Amino acid sequence: MITENQYFDGQVKSLGYETTEGKSTIGIINPGEYEFGTANKEIMQVIEGKLTILLKGKTEWQDIDAGQSFEVSPNSSFKVKTEVQTAYLCQYR
Amino acid sequence: MITENQYFDGQVKSLGYETTEGKSTIGIINPGEYEFGTANKEIMQVIEGKLTILLKGKTEWQDIDAGQSFEVSPNSSFKVKTEVQTAYLCQYR
Repeated sequence: MITENQYFDGQVKSLGYETTEGKSTIGIINPGEYEFGTANKEIMQVIEGKLTILLKGKTEWQDIDAGQSFEVSPNSSFKVKTEVQTAYLCQYR
Repeated sequence: MITENQYFDGQVKSLGYETTEGKSTIGIINPGEYEFGTANKEIMQVIEGKLTILLKGKTEWQDIDAGQSFEVSPNSSFKVKTEVQTAYLCQYR
């Protein structure tokens, strides 16, 4: 099954699927700033575009370019902002 | 705008967006075999999973693993089969 998700009034949309190593989603983030919560550990990779992120407890925003990734702890949150439509891969594992 | 597309009764779903270099889509292909036509040149990259593809006019199927890509000519077609849910990036440029 391919699940469809959307957040922030459709400013972020994703498609969910399963791999032998765990669940994943791919998605698009429209220009803007958003905050996401995590239940499980997430590995986020930028596929195309660019994100600037702020992990919970940190004070410095960090640029994540295409091909780069960052990890988010379980039961945490992060802020993300972007100036361009950005495609990402999120792996729950 | 993030466009939502689906093909083959929802066995393939994608999300479309725009970059400074042209349109792109990211999508998921469920296990099965499908044939796609192209209007424009497409660069297809496997993000997660694995595809086996047959370009129009070719006789040999070709494996495309995660991280690998292939090009499809405009006004052409290709067959694709997969045994696992596979995430892809398609760049029109």
